[in-house]
This record gives sequence, structure tokens and C-alpha cells, in this order.
Amino acid sequence: MKNLLITGISGFVGSYLADYCARNEQNISIHGLDISAASGCRDAPYLYYQADLLDKDRVEALIEEINPDTIIHLASFSSVGDSWKDPIKSFKNNTTIFLNLLEITHSLKIPCRILSVGSSEEYGIVRTDDLPLTEKLPLNPVSPYAVARVAQEQLSHIYAKGFGMDIVCTRSFNHIGPGQADKFVVSSIGRQFAEIKKGAREKLHVGNTAIIRDFLDVRDVVRAYYLLIKKGSAGETYNICSGQGISVAQLIDLYAEISDVTPQVETRPELLRPVENPVVIGSYEKLAAHAGWKPEITLIHSLRDIYAYWLEHN
Amino acid sequence: MKNLLITGISGFVGSYLADYCARNEQNISIHGLDISAASGCRDAPYLYYQADLLDKDRVEALIEEINPDTIIHLASFSSVGDSWKDPIKSFKNNTTIFLNLLEITHSLKIPCRILSVGSSEEYGIVRTDDLPLTEKLPLNPVSPYAVARVAQEQLSHIYAKGFGMDIVCTRSFNHIGPGQADKFVVSSIGRQFAEIKKGAREKLHVGNTAIIRDFLDVRDVVRAYYLLIKKGSAGETYNICSGQGISVAQLIDLYAEISDVTPQVETRPELLRPVENPVVIGSYEKLAAHAGWKPEITLIHSLRDIYAYWLEHN
Repeated sequence: MKNLLITGISGFVGSYLADYCARNEQNISIHGLDISAASGCRDAPYLYYQADLLDKDRVEALIEEINPDTIIHLASFSSVGDSWKDPIKSFKNNTTIFLNLLEITHSLKIPCRILSVGSSEEYGIVRTDDLPLTEKLPLNPVSPYAVARVAQEQLSHIYAKGFGMDIVCTRSFNHIGPGQADKFVVSSIGRQFAEIKKGAREKLHVGNTAIIRDFLDVRDVVRAYYLLIKKGSAGETYNICSGQGISVAQLIDLYAEISDVTPQVETRPELLRPVENPVVIGSYEKLAAHAGWKPEITLIHSLRDIYAYWLEHN
Repeated sequence: MKNLLITGISGFVGSYLADYCARNEQNISIHGLDISAASGCRDAPYLYYQADLLDKDRVEALIEEINPDTIIHLASFSSVGDSWKDPIKSFKNNTTIFLNLLEITHSLKIPCRILSVGSSEEYGIVRTDDLPLTEKLPLNPVSPYAVARVAQEQLSHIYAKGFGMDIVCTRSFNHIGPGQADKFVVSSIGRQFAEIKKGAREKLHVGNTAIIRDFLDVRDVVRAYYLLIKKGSAGETYNICSGQGISVAQLIDLYAEISDVTPQVETRPELLRPVENPVVIGSYEKLAAHAGWKPEITLIHSLRDIYAYWLEHN
């Protein structure tokens, strides 16, 4: 990994990933591509390109110039909720952008490893008997976002098999960590607790608090991505998860402990979704076996950091 | 079914479907939408609209005007081979056009039944033990075309479940019949036999002749679509197939019998695909149980008609 391209670098995961790769790799050039203007650049220096991955000609010219040996494709419209509000935009920005990337590297014959970042949402509604979810389970997506992620993974396998491309896929479970946008549940609740603590708000607004998710700290996530680039097998898919399930209601209790605040909780209809997975817990056995990864940051550690982040930011 | 909209009406199946509905339904208005200029109008009169389903604004205005009670969505880029040559175009024209249709009918709140036509290609590589394929089998698409069809079906289920829309899905196996474009194998071979018979060609050009497919006459296909509109269950998927498998090599033998020609066969690399299903045979049990359908036209009957068609056409 000497010449790395990260798509979606301005997103939540991007800056953590750039930092991690810069710290762990000698003589690496990092190129970051994003639809937004440059922002969120943390410690790592990288070359920044503002581009829309839907603009295939521009991206093709950039990739030809960069000639990466590694592409980590983080760019996505990653909100399940938003995919119900604008399914077309969400679908296009999760499938066409990835197809453009595949077609460009394929047609330019760039011999690079691509990490295709997918989602635990691909599993959809699962039976309790199937928990923790392993990569062999049939996929049963239940949101427009999830359908796009399934398509992305299937296209990855097809390009790996049909064209011999070096593509490794992930099914990344819910990420959490300081700096995440507050449209994601753990960040939203952490922010609201901080606001209540500061006297800037009264009630805690939530959606369905019964849902159980497998939350993983973003710093563990980027370490997994790095290890998969080094040790993952082409054409394979890996769960990236904590192996632990926790309900949103339990999260609220943990935040209450951390903040020493007991807020009034209000369920808001706009935070409920037409169809939702009741429980998602993954198995990271395959990732552990192939890449020697296991989670290192505990949930309470993550939540403390997120709460502290929101105490400092508005 | 009083006000029917058929997308992709100028395609192979469209004109057969319009004819069948006109013959079997009293007082029906048929509206046909297609990206091509009007053509292939057989006997049935219908109102024709030239429009690209990617042009959402125009299609929205048309659908608002038509106010259909039934939409049969035939429009697609249906060639598996072409999806390997231009995956982006194929993917977009099989997913975005369908999403546009769903979003338009959803946002206009038009209470119509939608038949979402999918493909047996969704099954992908299957084990001999799984034959004949039933609708419960996990999907394992192996071409860009197939990935798009899987996405289309999953989106149908999501809109049916999440938004209460009345959508019935098919997995239609290989169609055959007079008038089909000669990029499809049975039509191509029929045409070549007719040309050899007429002295206009010497050799028969083929791809992989070992593959086994389940071929169904287009006239049986449109009868199944009609019955599914009447009797299919919303949110369900139905195989539409003959239940019989035949190899391309056996097809060539049958054409040789029909035409009394024994051609020299040449395998052409451009007709081979990067990844291909060795065998596809479906079960139509569910369609028979829910809609009382079974195939009526034999394979030899279809092949005779196709050969006769190509003797008359160039």
C-alpha cells in the first residue's frame, strides 16, 4: 500500500482511515476524493480532489493520474432513513458511483486492490436462530439502502470472478465514534444528552428504542479495513462488527450513567421507519481468522468519547 | 384491468402482450410507452407514447395523465451479454427506470397493480440438487444484468411491504418466439439455419452449446402475465417457465430436423461470456397453484414458428 485512494474521505470514517494508514504505513501517498469541499482533515496529510463519483469522465481522468495500488471505497449515501425519503438518489449514489469506479479501474487496467465497503443492513430481517450473523447467511434487504448495498457486493463478486479484479468486500455493522453526524442514532442520542446537560434542551427524541444493533467504534473499523487490504482474500466478504448486541434503550441508560442526566424520552414518528430489522448482531470470526482482527475499544469507552465530543461541539 | 400501461411495449414481448390483453379483456384501454419510435404494433390498437423511463419528469406527467389501474413493466435492457459489455448502461436501464416508476406511482398515489417482470438469471449458478428451481431458493446472480434484476425484485418487495403498494413480481425464464431479436440464442440459431437453407451463409456460429436452459414460448409468457394481474398475490414472486431443460446443442439438432440442414458449427469467442450458468430449469408449481397457468405451446412448435419467421424475414 504505497499509493492509496480513499473515496468519501470527508465522511466520518474517511479522516480516521487516512490517519490510521498514515501512522501505520511508511512512504505512503494518500489521495482523498470527495463530493464535498475539503474538510475534516485531521492529522494526516493527503492530496484532496473534489469530485462527484457520478461524473465518470472526471473521475476516470483523476484515477488515471493517481494510478492507485489501493482503493478504499467509503463514499456512499449511508443513511437508511434517507433512503426511504429519496430512494432514487440514495440508490444511484450507492450503486452507480461504485459501478463507475469498477468500470474505470477495469478499463484502465489498473492493478489495484479495491475494498468495497458494504453494510450489515444487507442481511435484513433475520431469525433469532441465525444470530450472530455469519457471511454465509442469505441476504434479505428491507430498505432501499440495503438493496443498493447488496447490489454493490454482488457486482464486486462478479467483477472479481468475471474480470479477475482484486476486490475484497465488507459488511460493516453500525459504526460509532466522536465526530459522527447526528442523524445516526448513537451520535444523535449522545448529542442530545450533552445538550440536556448544558441546559440547551429538555427532552430526548428517539425512534424505536427496542431495536438491537451491533455497534463498533470507528477506530476499530478503520483498523479492520487496513488489515483487510493487507490480508483479506479477493472475492471474499467479511463482517466487521463487535459481536455484541445492545438495544437503543440500553444505550440511553449508559448515556444516563455517563452524563448523570435522566431525561424525559419522547418517541418521534419521523424517526420511525416503514420496515426495520428488530435485531442485528454479527460474527467477526472470519475476519479474525483471515486478518487477525478483533475489537479493542469497548462500548462504554466509545460512548464516553462521543458524549465528550458533543459537550465540546454544537 | 380497464386502463393498462405497458412499458417497453415495442419490445419482443410487448406486442404479444397488447394483443393478448385486447383479445381477452372487454373495454380495455391500452397505453404503450417505449424509448423507441412506435413499431411492432401488431393487431391491437393502443395509445403510444415515446419516452425514456430515465426521464422521470416526463414519465410522471404521462402517468398522471394516463392514470392506469394496471402497469406491466416490460421495459429493460434484457441482454445478459450486453450487460457484460456496458454494465453501467445496463444496470441503470434495469434499476433506475423501475425505481422511477415506483416513485412516480407512489408519490401520485395511483392505486394500481404493478407487474414487475424479472428474470431466471436472478438465481445464478445453482446446484443440480436444487433443480427445478423454486422461488424460495437464495439468489446468487452472476452477471451485471442479473444483479439489476435482483435489485428490482427486492425493491418491489420493499415498496409492497414498506408503502403497501400492489406489486407482483415474476422471474421469467428464457422467452422464445417469432419476432425475437437475433441476439438471443434461439432466435439467432433459427435465423442462421434459415440463412443456410437459403444459401446466404455457410457456418453456424454459436457460443457455449453445453448450457441448458428452460425456454418458454412468448405466447405462454404473456398469458402468464395476464393471469398474474388477475390472480397473483401482492408482494409475491412467481417463476414463469416451461419446467423443461434443453441444451443449445439439442436445440441445434431440433433445428436441423426442422430445416433438413446439417450445418458446420463454429464456436465464436465473442459469443462466450465471462461467467455463465451451466443449467437453468424452473418449477412453475406456484404459478399453477395461484393462477391456474401451465404451458400450452411445445418447444418444437415454437422452433418451427421461429424458423418459418426467419425464412420470411431478413
